[in-house]
Amino acid sequence: MRFGLFCSPKADRPGFGPETGQGFFEYLDFNVEAEALGFHSSFSVEHHFSGWNQVSSTLMLLAALAMRTKTLRLGTAVIVPPWHNPVLLAEEVATLDLLSKGRLDLGIGKGYRHSEFKGFQVAPEEAEARFEEALEMMTRAWTTRKRFSHKGRFWHFEDIVVEPPPAQTPYPPLWVAAGNPHSIKRAAARGFNLILDQYASPATLGERIAIYSAEREANGLTFDPMQVAVARQLYVAKDAADKEAALVRQAEYTKRTVDVSRDPAAKTGSHVLAYADRKGATEENALYGTPVELARMIEALHDAGVAYVLLTIAGGVDQLRRFARDIMPTFTLDATVRAAE
Amino acid sequence: MRFGLFCSPKADRPGFGPETGQGFFEYLDFNVEAEALGFHSSFSVEHHFSGWNQVSSTLMLLAALAMRTKTLRLGTAVIVPPWHNPVLLAEEVATLDLLSKGRLDLGIGKGYRHSEFKGFQVAPEEAEARFEEALEMMTRAWTTRKRFSHKGRFWHFEDIVVEPPPAQTPYPPLWVAAGNPHSIKRAAARGFNLILDQYASPATLGERIAIYSAEREANGLTFDPMQVAVARQLYVAKDAADKEAALVRQAEYTKRTVDVSRDPAAKTGSHVLAYADRKGATEENALYGTPVELARMIEALHDAGVAYVLLTIAGGVDQLRRFARDIMPTFTLDATVRAAE
Repeated sequence: MRFGLFCSPKADRPGFGPETGQGFFEYLDFNVEAEALGFHSSFSVEHHFSGWNQVSSTLMLLAALAMRTKTLRLGTAVIVPPWHNPVLLAEEVATLDLLSKGRLDLGIGKGYRHSEFKGFQVAPEEAEARFEEALEMMTRAWTTRKRFSHKGRFWHFEDIVVEPPPAQTPYPPLWVAAGNPHSIKRAAARGFNLILDQYASPATLGERIAIYSAEREANGLTFDPMQVAVARQLYVAKDAADKEAALVRQAEYTKRTVDVSRDPAAKTGSHVLAYADRKGATEENALYGTPVELARMIEALHDAGVAYVLLTIAGGVDQLRRFARDIMPTFTLDATVRAAE
Repeated sequence: MRFGLFCSPKADRPGFGPETGQGFFEYLDFNVEAEALGFHSSFSVEHHFSGWNQVSSTLMLLAALAMRTKTLRLGTAVIVPPWHNPVLLAEEVATLDLLSKGRLDLGIGKGYRHSEFKGFQVAPEEAEARFEEALEMMTRAWTTRKRFSHKGRFWHFEDIVVEPPPAQTPYPPLWVAAGNPHSIKRAAARGFNLILDQYASPATLGERIAIYSAEREANGLTFDPMQVAVARQLYVAKDAADKEAALVRQAEYTKRTVDVSRDPAAKTGSHVLAYADRKGATEENALYGTPVELARMIEALHDAGVAYVLLTIAGGVDQLRRFARDIMPTFTLDATVRAAE
């Protein structure tokens, strides 16, 4: 198995205002250490207008991280192309792919936060069409070294060649989050890698991975378990009381995200957020527990066919080290042994 | 006096295709060495669709450079806001300002290349209005920590707070290129720093700096000679023949830039480019010559009131070192002595 990180960088830190960038510097240090500890990747969110100093220019931050790391895969999870000019985004993506020597994993999505649709004045009902047009435009930009023009529903470009090209061929792996069988099949058929959510049980994950791999193969595409990353929240607890306290803190954080995402006029959240709303979702499947409990939970993921886990580590660098020291070797060593067989 | 660099990074290098990013890595190394040699700043162009792998995501490249330097000021010369979503650009600028700990100098312009107006499908006659709206939007974004809305001619945003804030207060220095008295006065009145072009003679530069400083003071703004950067092409020649050969190479490069900038249907270039078209413009005022000749030319700039020169160094790192070793100390030492008086 391999482990990566799922990060939500913020510019500020307790005692340091956002104008210090202290949160970004700690994020960079955290990831430098993660690479040294054997983590495979680091994916970061991108959000706008949240009001709590969340990273809004994720590719910029990853360009900085690219300079401080050598092997770590650098991921977005996710950038929402409907907010961006697709040509400028294609240029930024390619530039980062070059600067990182081909280490970029590009997670993309259609957007789900009401506050972002409203802020950018993008109609939610246009999100899918905007996503598709941007995707078509970007893949063309990355793979075309001759001049071309594009006249779509939302964008018009004339006689352009988009530079530079990316380092990876034909372009960085594209990752999408998907949950239901239809969207998983669609991701598989298009050759996208898959991010599975942090609330699904091992049994559900196993079903989804099976759907994904079958659909890839039905489309003549090879399947590699590393094409599926499973998000999990992590807390390495000292004991049961420590675990309970961490779960309470997490519930407050989740509530804030749900609040900012939902349209105040709507009666229900989006389907993505329904998971987070369900009582007990975090308790059931988050990796919260003592090292012994965690090892058992990760073994269950492994048995369900999960090869790649992205950890959201709320507790800082101590938690990172404890996981890397006490838990990770069992599973990464396991993978090495298997590979040698 | 202080010296900075004016760079035109490219992704490729002879023998290395653009997909290697080798040109970007050499640009980074070049600037790391420039910092060590005592250069004050490095400004880079941003261009799109040129067809010769010019940097298109300058802020990304500067984010990488920020990680590899400590004191170097990081500049754009120039980013064209009319190509960008002003909110996303404000976010990127602020993120870079944080990552560099307040070292960003933001050069902005209205655009001049026909190929970029056509590519982005921006009408040249809208350039000024787009520039003004973007500037208003960005400065508001950088200085407003409460939510606001913006409904302009080109952009509409609702209930947003743009994060993160920049490190510098109230925001990074804004630089504009200007040549005629009207545009210089306008830049001065608005508190913009000034970039003067590479073709103007010392006498002309002196007049322009006088106009600028007088207008700043008329508007109640202090004047500091470091608010005016003068662009110069540099070649430290061994002898007269070496200098002539370098001038021939430079003329070919200039022609390519002029060609891509001009509307093929138009009879004349823009006023900015008129300088480059004029025969002998480079020969007259570029810093091409032996160390003795160069020292005399820089002394003339100094006497005209120029305190800050941005050098375009075509000849690579050897030229950088020769300038820093043989010429720069005379003038930077001079400044130190003056400051001590």
